[in-house]
Amino acid sequence: MSPDRLSATFAALSDPTRRAILARLASGETSVTELAQPFAMSLPAISKHLKVLERAGLIVRGREAQWRPCRLEAGPLKDAADWLERYRRFWEESFARLEDYLEELQTKEGKRESKD
Amino acid sequence: MSPDRLSATFAALSDPTRRAILARLASGETSVTELAQPFAMSLPAISKHLKVLERAGLIVRGREAQWRPCRLEAGPLKDAADWLERYRRFWEESFARLEDYLEELQTKEGKRESKD
Repeated sequence: MSPDRLSATFAALSDPTRRAILARLASGETSVTELAQPFAMSLPAISKHLKVLERAGLIVRGREAQWRPCRLEAGPLKDAADWLERYRRFWEESFARLEDYLEELQTKEGKRESKD
Repeated sequence: MSPDRLSATFAALSDPTRRAILARLASGETSVTELAQPFAMSLPAISKHLKVLERAGLIVRGREAQWRPCRLEAGPLKDAADWLERYRRFWEESFARLEDYLEELQTKEGKRESKD
């Protein structure tokens, strides 16, 4: 996968409306009109978001002229998840440090209480 | 986490230079000058990328006036990974379908060979 493909994926995900569209498509393919309903947005505005998602390969649109259902394509999401996975040890380390710190605080608290 | 925090994280990750900076910081904190070395980029250009990463909470910079080392902050990467995780079943399903298809092709190929 080229780095630009990954850039396009992350850029497509950097908008809350586009993430909400993907969340909607996770429950099944649907038409643009249906997709637009929960959003306080014009059809052209929604179409613009769909084009970004389509270019990033995150959705595929049917070829029927009248009804062009949108379908989720998860491949690029996997690539994005794989990229993030390399950093897992960093967030797990931060979490472990936080746990140690909380444990230390509780021990101190316990000692103070036993003195009182 | 607010949706905009997630948007800022994905937007920060949508650039190959910024992802390369994070990859570099994964091996330890470093100065801006050192960070800039592998890139054919001016210090102001690198500083601009660092500001995007800093605003997204992906890096923290030291407060020393002379040497302001950059350090990776993995918290927002975890949140991005958690968001992507919801779609895991979709890419796993696609992969399973592809496997089924390849198996089918091999069976057909096998039958043809035994006929020849």
